[in-house]
Amino acid sequence: MSLDALRAALPPHVVVTDPAALDVARADKSGHRSVAPPLAIVEAEAVEHVQAAMAWASAHRVPVVPRAAGTGLAGGAIAGGGELVVSVDRMRRLRDVSVVDQSCVVEPGIRNAELNELLAAHGLWWPPDPASRAISTVGGNIATNAGGLLCAKYGVTREWVLALDVVLADGSLVTTGHRTVKGVTGLDLTALMIGSEGTLGIVVGATLKLRPLVEGPVWTVGAFFADEASAAAACTAVTAARIRPAIMELVGREAVSMLAAYTGRAMAGAFVLVQTDDLGADTTSAAVAEILAAHGGAVERTDDLTQSDALVQVRRQLHFALESFGTVLVEDISVPRSRLAEMFRACDEAARRHGVRLVTSAHAGDGNLHPTFVFDGTEPSEEIWACAHEVFTAGIALGGTLTGEHGVGILKRRWLVDELGERQLALQRAVKAAFDPLGILNPGKAL
Amino acid sequence: MSLDALRAALPPHVVVTDPAALDVARADKSGHRSVAPPLAIVEAEAVEHVQAAMAWASAHRVPVVPRAAGTGLAGGAIAGGGELVVSVDRMRRLRDVSVVDQSCVVEPGIRNAELNELLAAHGLWWPPDPASRAISTVGGNIATNAGGLLCAKYGVTREWVLALDVVLADGSLVTTGHRTVKGVTGLDLTALMIGSEGTLGIVVGATLKLRPLVEGPVWTVGAFFADEASAAAACTAVTAARIRPAIMELVGREAVSMLAAYTGRAMAGAFVLVQTDDLGADTTSAAVAEILAAHGGAVERTDDLTQSDALVQVRRQLHFALESFGTVLVEDISVPRSRLAEMFRACDEAARRHGVRLVTSAHAGDGNLHPTFVFDGTEPSEEIWACAHEVFTAGIALGGTLTGEHGVGILKRRWLVDELGERQLALQRAVKAAFDPLGILNPGKAL
Ligand SMILES: Cc1cc2nc3c(=O)[nH]c(=O)nc-3n(C[C@H](O)[C@H](O)[C@H](O)COP(=O)(O)OP(=O)(O)OC[C@H]3O[C@@H](n4cnc5c(N)ncnc54)[C@H](O)[C@@H]3O)c2cc1C
Ligand SMILES: Cc1cc2nc3c(=O)[nH]c(=O)nc-3n(C[C@H](O)[C@H](O)[C@H](O)COP(=O)(O)OP(=O)(O)OC[C@H]3O[C@@H](n4cnc5c(N)ncnc54)[C@H](O)[C@@H]3O)c2cc1C
Repeated sequence: MSLDALRAALPPHVVVTDPAALDVARADKSGHRSVAPPLAIVEAEAVEHVQAAMAWASAHRVPVVPRAAGTGLAGGAIAGGGELVVSVDRMRRLRDVSVVDQSCVVEPGIRNAELNELLAAHGLWWPPDPASRAISTVGGNIATNAGGLLCAKYGVTREWVLALDVVLADGSLVTTGHRTVKGVTGLDLTALMIGSEGTLGIVVGATLKLRPLVEGPVWTVGAFFADEASAAAACTAVTAARIRPAIMELVGREAVSMLAAYTGRAMAGAFVLVQTDDLGADTTSAAVAEILAAHGGAVERTDDLTQSDALVQVRRQLHFALESFGTVLVEDISVPRSRLAEMFRACDEAARRHGVRLVTSAHAGDGNLHPTFVFDGTEPSEEIWACAHEVFTAGIALGGTLTGEHGVGILKRRWLVDELGERQLALQRAVKAAFDPLGILNPGKAL
Repeated sequence: MSLDALRAALPPHVVVTDPAALDVARADKSGHRSVAPPLAIVEAEAVEHVQAAMAWASAHRVPVVPRAAGTGLAGGAIAGGGELVVSVDRMRRLRDVSVVDQSCVVEPGIRNAELNELLAAHGLWWPPDPASRAISTVGGNIATNAGGLLCAKYGVTREWVLALDVVLADGSLVTTGHRTVKGVTGLDLTALMIGSEGTLGIVVGATLKLRPLVEGPVWTVGAFFADEASAAAACTAVTAARIRPAIMELVGREAVSMLAAYTGRAMAGAFVLVQTDDLGADTTSAAVAEILAAHGGAVERTDDLTQSDALVQVRRQLHFALESFGTVLVEDISVPRSRLAEMFRACDEAARRHGVRLVTSAHAGDGNLHPTFVFDGTEPSEEIWACAHEVFTAGIALGGTLTGEHGVGILKRRWLVDELGERQLALQRAVKAAFDPLGILNPGKAL
């Protein structure tokens, strides 16, 4: 495929074919890697660059992989032979902030944490908080509908996006949604774009809904339990008591023992972390502490920043702790909150049956579990895939879903039909075709 | 068109051709009426009835108008000659409530207020609160993405729906979304269905996200201002102070004088109503009262239920007050909150230019205005339409949208392209065609 026409349509430094750069685009953080490098990377610096790239790709039927920071865990940004990468990594400006409208306009490549630092100066905050917030982009968060620790209370990315500028497969530009808080003109294509993993169009701008920074005191409760069943029952009791914590996490026993080894800090059991940030946080957290204790937890409650941080770090360090033991493959099942204990048990039993190491933690506030395989070498074994299959099937049987926040990418495609059914999958593909009749946008991913 | 095959596929009492019933289906609450009655109404009592009706309609290429309670203000449920009405009005069961998962499963025809009465027994609440909550259905709220007074704080219907059972144009049944709080498997067809006004499929079941009932004290602040500009500035200042009231309404001067005449209560000026319901509601409402007073408002603040209700009634009685003066045509512009005062002014100026009576109130907390024409006779005059056109154009120019919560229906179709642009409108129609290739679902509505 000659790149001459592409080069002619763009400033020279925007079309990158440097082998080292192409090599980076062969992987993301999923642990997968394409067999051959892509044709080129368009490192877009303006909307028109993305439009020119898509027009060229449409004219020549070249498959396009949209890419931002490449921190995805599902393989969605991985590009292979014959594909063009269109990256928005260099489009990082915060264009506008309105305190009265509690909204801002950004380019897609801005990092989540960087945006929030800029917003803090206005007393504002964009709530989506994936653990990767320092390194992942707002556009990537939108394309994957990212969640995080705080979404038990504040919701996922979908709830914090008002409008999108999208370059379509044919290179045309549309603005979906509304700069207003409410609006029902036409179908909600903004919501459809969110979580679409680069299969419908390329996000080149976003109007985000913001919140005032949380000002009240923050109280943190940590508790260790004999096992996951009692820890999960305690979490369920917190929700049933109609308390809405900002954070509610459950870290399984094995994960805690690996954390103990990694951090050198003595701890054992299943760990529950709860944080409350309302005006009534003191009272609410005391009620939480009481419930956790009543379920057998050894409880610590604090509003001291250092002590609180120590508790939160137990959870935040988990990924790094697991990585210190081997290669990790992070799964992402979500089940109704009431089925949390059953799902922990299903993970344990599947791991035992297949003789693999599966370490589980959960965003207990919203029923999202991250069963994580830890193994030697670079490629997951057949046994791991067989165990993963059982875990997915168990999750779907409990009324759950394959992926709570990481996306389908290339990793979960083969289970898609189990969850959606044939008829819905056909419908989803028809919708995809309405956006991308030539099928050039991220083919082989997500759908 | 012979109905024999339809009758053969359904229990006899489900296929209604009684002229009085057909006549009802020629109108909704938009003030419009079709020129001829529909063929028949399928009063579905089960999902299979809806499926059979759609299979018949597909086979015979008969246009279908989905209908629930018929309280819509955009003409979306109006059926005319040659069309089949598929009504879910009789499917009213609450199937399941989970306190732990804070979710419930309903049939679409259940009334919003009836559902909330049933949920209150579990200490739970479904927040969407259109003023029509006693008479409109949950399915209708979903199909129009209904909003209400409380959505400044609690959001619109879209934020409170987890999963949908949808009968497609060909009669097949799909379940979109997840019973879980989080989930990113596939495209978000649930969000796409919400607000689609019966053009994509028929909602036959819904899993709703619930909240604990608000328990804290509720404080209410009412204030009268010299004009809309100072009232709007006061509302803007409340938001800028990072206060998130549960309700923040602005009723224009002319509306207030009509309310005074209707209720016999002495009042004048532009009215602002604010309600706070947090744990810190007392403090917050005091801060609100201070801001309103600083902007020239004559302020009253109370947590007394009777007094509070009197203030809220000012707003709630508005629709009935206006109706006592003539026929009403309610518009539904939404603008960024910061442009509220400008939009009030644009309405006044347009009304003056065209010599029509236009009375405006707003959900000030989210920038959604209801400019309402009040006129004699049954049909709006040419001057009213010319004025409406100016109002819409002004709203779009201020970064706003044609409809914040009522929908496009038949009323706003001709302005759709002004807001969406040609390319996006084509894309929206392609998405519609992916769902409904024969174009039998609510043709001529919304898109
Ligand atoms: C240590 C670590 C912790 C993590 N924690 C979390 C977590 O807590 N929660 C969570 O949800 N995720 C988490 N992730 C996963 C990842 O960070 C998120 O999925 C993130 O949103 C991806 O952003 P990105 O900019 O890296 O996108 P990329 O990885 O570059 O792309 C991700 C997908 O989005 C598409 N895409 C990217 N940009 C655009 C665009 N502008 N337009 C259209 N499509 C686009 C790509 O094609 C791809 O399919 C974590 C990852 C790591 C490595
Ligand atoms: C006095 C009054 C006050 C109102 N206040 C508000 C308000 O504050 N906020 C607000 O948003 N609206 C308000 N409305 C408008 C109206 O009540 C809402 O639009 C409501 O959601 C319509 O519900 P319904 O059951 O009456 O639906 P219908 O009027 O029967 O139908 C409305 C639309 O939805 C479609 N539809 C209905 N059911 C289904 C289904 N199961 N599947 C697919 N499509 C379906 C129809 O085809 C139609 O296009 C008010 C109306 C009145 C009369």
